[in-house]
Amino acid sequence: MIKELINNLSSKEEIGEFIEKFQPYDLAEMVTDLDDKEQIVFFTNIPFDLGAEIIEYLEPELQYRLLDHIEKKIAITLLNHMSSDKAVDLLLAIHPYQAKILMEFLPKEYREKIKTLMTYEDNSAGSLATVDYIGARKHWTIEYTLSHIRKVGQEAEIVSYVYVIDTHGKLTGVVSLKEIILAKPNQKLEEIAKEDMITVLVDEHQEGVADTLAKYDLVAIPVVNTSHRMIGIITVDDLIDVIHEEATEDIQKLGGSSPLEEAYFKNSVWSLFRKRIGWLLILFVAEAYTGNVLRHYEDILDQVIALAFFIPLLIGTGGNSGTQTVTTLVRAMAMGEVEFKDIFKVMRKEVSTGLLLGAVMGVVAFIRAEMLGVGFDIGTVVAITAICIVIWASFVAAVMPLILHKLKIDPAVVSGPFIATLVDGTGLIIYFTMARLFLNI
Amino acid sequence: MIKELINNLSSKEEIGEFIEKFQPYDLAEMVTDLDDKEQIVFFTNIPFDLGAEIIEYLEPELQYRLLDHIEKKIAITLLNHMSSDKAVDLLLAIHPYQAKILMEFLPKEYREKIKTLMTYEDNSAGSLATVDYIGARKHWTIEYTLSHIRKVGQEAEIVSYVYVIDTHGKLTGVVSLKEIILAKPNQKLEEIAKEDMITVLVDEHQEGVADTLAKYDLVAIPVVNTSHRMIGIITVDDLIDVIHEEATEDIQKLGGSSPLEEAYFKNSVWSLFRKRIGWLLILFVAEAYTGNVLRHYEDILDQVIALAFFIPLLIGTGGNSGTQTVTTLVRAMAMGEVEFKDIFKVMRKEVSTGLLLGAVMGVVAFIRAEMLGVGFDIGTVVAITAICIVIWASFVAAVMPLILHKLKIDPAVVSGPFIATLVDGTGLIIYFTMARLFLNI
Repeated sequence: MIKELINNLSSKEEIGEFIEKFQPYDLAEMVTDLDDKEQIVFFTNIPFDLGAEIIEYLEPELQYRLLDHIEKKIAITLLNHMSSDKAVDLLLAIHPYQAKILMEFLPKEYREKIKTLMTYEDNSAGSLATVDYIGARKHWTIEYTLSHIRKVGQEAEIVSYVYVIDTHGKLTGVVSLKEIILAKPNQKLEEIAKEDMITVLVDEHQEGVADTLAKYDLVAIPVVNTSHRMIGIITVDDLIDVIHEEATEDIQKLGGSSPLEEAYFKNSVWSLFRKRIGWLLILFVAEAYTGNVLRHYEDILDQVIALAFFIPLLIGTGGNSGTQTVTTLVRAMAMGEVEFKDIFKVMRKEVSTGLLLGAVMGVVAFIRAEMLGVGFDIGTVVAITAICIVIWASFVAAVMPLILHKLKIDPAVVSGPFIATLVDGTGLIIYFTMARLFLNI
Repeated sequence: MIKELINNLSSKEEIGEFIEKFQPYDLAEMVTDLDDKEQIVFFTNIPFDLGAEIIEYLEPELQYRLLDHIEKKIAITLLNHMSSDKAVDLLLAIHPYQAKILMEFLPKEYREKIKTLMTYEDNSAGSLATVDYIGARKHWTIEYTLSHIRKVGQEAEIVSYVYVIDTHGKLTGVVSLKEIILAKPNQKLEEIAKEDMITVLVDEHQEGVADTLAKYDLVAIPVVNTSHRMIGIITVDDLIDVIHEEATEDIQKLGGSSPLEEAYFKNSVWSLFRKRIGWLLILFVAEAYTGNVLRHYEDILDQVIALAFFIPLLIGTGGNSGTQTVTTLVRAMAMGEVEFKDIFKVMRKEVSTGLLLGAVMGVVAFIRAEMLGVGFDIGTVVAITAICIVIWASFVAAVMPLILHKLKIDPAVVSGPFIATLVDGTGLIIYFTMARLFLNI
C-alpha cells in the first residue's frame, strides 16, 4: 500500500483517487512510513480538512516537523482545521519556543481560546475539551439553525448536538441534531431544547467524566465552569482513550508498579526501572520481617527441618488466594460496584468463600505432605495452616482496599504483591504456632 | 427524590413535570426503588418512548415483570420501542416460555429479525447489533432522505449515519448526518456516500469490534455477514460497556482467577469459589515441587539453618518483580502495543531493567542479611541470589506471555500468581546452588 501511495504522489488527481479508498487513521499510518519530502508532498496535495484529520493521529514531534516544513499558508490552514483539543495536545507537547511559532498561525480570538484550554490541568475535563462545537441562541428557528450548521458544521468536531448559549456565554440547553431534523422549520430552539442536561465541571478528573458519559450513553458532553459558562465539549472518542488509559493504570498498579505514563515501548529501561524500584523496595522492607519471624522460630525449625519444605507452598497459596480477592475487589470498586458501606457484606462473602477454598486446600495440602512422607502430625499442621492462611488472606484482601478507599488512598495500591507480602509473614506465624501446638515443641 | 416521585405519581401532568428534570438513567434508578404497583403507574403515565428508554436500563427480571403486569397495549408499545439489541438481551435472559409470550407482542417481520439476532453467539458482533438504523437507497435525493429520516428517525437508535443498502440487502455506502445537512437538497446520496467504509463481520469477537471503533473514532459501526449483507449496527455506548468488561476480565485473569460473568455482588459465594478454586489448585500443584527442591537440599539447610530465614524474602522479591513485568506486558499486548515479533526487543528491555533492579535489590539484600547477623558469606549468597532471581523473573515474565500468545493461548492466563509460582521453585534452586558454591558445602 505504501508503495502504491508513493507511486501516486506525483499528481494531485492520483493522490485524490488513492486517498478515497482509505480512512484517515490508515492514511496516518502510511504517512509515518514516508520520508520527510514525501510527507510534505502528500499534505500539500490533499484536501486540507482531510489533512488536518490525518495530522491529528500523528505524534507531536512529527506534527510539528510537518507544520514547520510545509508551505506556511498550508501550515496555517492545517493547524486551524485541527480540532482544538488536539491542537492543545500538540502545543503542550513541543518546546515552548516551537509552540510560540505555531501559535502565531492562529487568528487572535482562536489563539486566546487555545491559551485558555492550555491552562487546564492534565487529566482534567478541561484538558480534553474542544471548542469546536456548534453554539446557538434560544430564539433561533430550526430553519435558521440548520443554515447555521451548514455554515459552521464543517469545522465542528461532532455535530450530534447543538448547544444553546446565552449572551453571557452560559449554557442553557442542548438539542440533538436528530431533534432538529424531526422538528418543524419554524419552531424555535427553546421549544425543543432540553434544559436539564448532563454537564461536567472543567476541573473534574477525566475518570469521572468517562463514567458520566458511559452512564448516560452520550456521544459528547459539555464542559462548564462553576458559573455554568460553556468551556467546550468532550467527545466520546477521546473518552474511550481515557477509559483505556485508566484501566491500564489500574492494571499496572495492581501488578505492583507505578503506572507508566506512555505506551510500553516509549519507556526507556531507566523509566521502567524508576516505575518499579519504589514498590520493589517497599515490598522488600515489608517482607524482610519474615526473616525475624523465622529466626524467632529457629529452634522449632532446627528440630523439625521438614517444616521448611512447606514454607513456599503455604505462603504462596496465601498470596495467590489474596491476590484473587484483591484484584476482583479493586476492579469492582473502580467500576462503582462496591463501596465502603458494603464492607461487612464483602467481608462475609470473602470469608465464606475463603472457608470453602481453605477446606479444599487443606485436604490437598495434607495429601501433599503425606506424599513427601513427613508423617501424620506434620501433615496435620500443614493442612490446618493451609486452611487458616487462605481464610486470613481472603479477609485481609477484602478489608484492605475498602479501608484504603475510605482513607482516600487509591485502593489499587493494594496490589497482588502487596497482599502476598502482608500474608507471608503472618502466615509463617500461623504455621509455627500450629506446629508448636500440634507437635508439642 | 424518590419520595417526590411517589407524591407526583397521582396525575399524568405531575409525572410529566417531574420526569422533565431527569435523565432516563436517573429515572431508571428511581424506578427500582418503587414498589410493584407504583412502577406500573409510572410506566402507564409517561410517554412510551421515554418509557422504553428507561426500561432498557433495568434488569431483565424487572423488565419482564413490568411488561407482564402492565396493560397489554402499553407493554406492546414499550417492547416495540426498545432498541432491538436490548430487546434481544431481555429475551435471552428470561425463561424461554416467558420469551415466547413477549415475542407475541412483536409484529411478524420484526419478530423474525429479533429471532435472527438471538442466534448470534454471545460476545460476537452480531449479539451487540441493533436493527434500529436508518437505511436508504443510493438514488435518493438529500431532500427525500431527510423526509425519510423525519419519518423513521424517532425509532432509530442513533441517527449519526444513514446506511445505503442495495435491493439485495447489501451495504454499499455510508453517509453521516452531518454530510447530509451540508449537502444540497437535490444531490443524490450516491454522490456523497462513502463506499470504502469500516465494517465488522457478524461473528467477530466484541473485543475486536471495540478496537476497530476506537481506532477509527466512530460512534457506530455497521455489522455485515460474509456476503456483505447488512445485519445491523453497533453503537458506541454498547462498546464502552464492552471495553469495561474486557478490562475487568483481564484484571481478574491477571489476579489468577477465572473471570466473573457478572457484577461482583451478583456472584454467590459458590460462584466465587468455583471461579477461584481451579487456578488455586493448579498453582498449588505447580508450587508443590518447591517441597521437593527443599528436601533435595535438606543437608545444606540442616547445616546452615540461617539460609531458611531468607527463603520467603528471596522468592517473594522474585515474584514481585515478575508480577510487575507480566502485568505491564499483558496489558500492552491487549492494547496492541506489543506483539510476538517484538519478543527480542521485549527481552532486551526487560532483562536490562532486571539487571538494574537486581543490582539494587542485591545491595539491599546484603544489608538485610548483615542486619540479621548471619555473617559475610551468607550475606553474599543472599545478595547474589537476589540479583539472579530478579533477572530470571524478569526474563520469564517477559517471554511467557508472548510465547503463549503465539500458541494462541490468552496471555492473561500468565497471571502474577502464575509467574510468582514459576519463579519460586527455580529461585530456590538458584539459592541453594549459590549456597553450595560460596559456602563450600
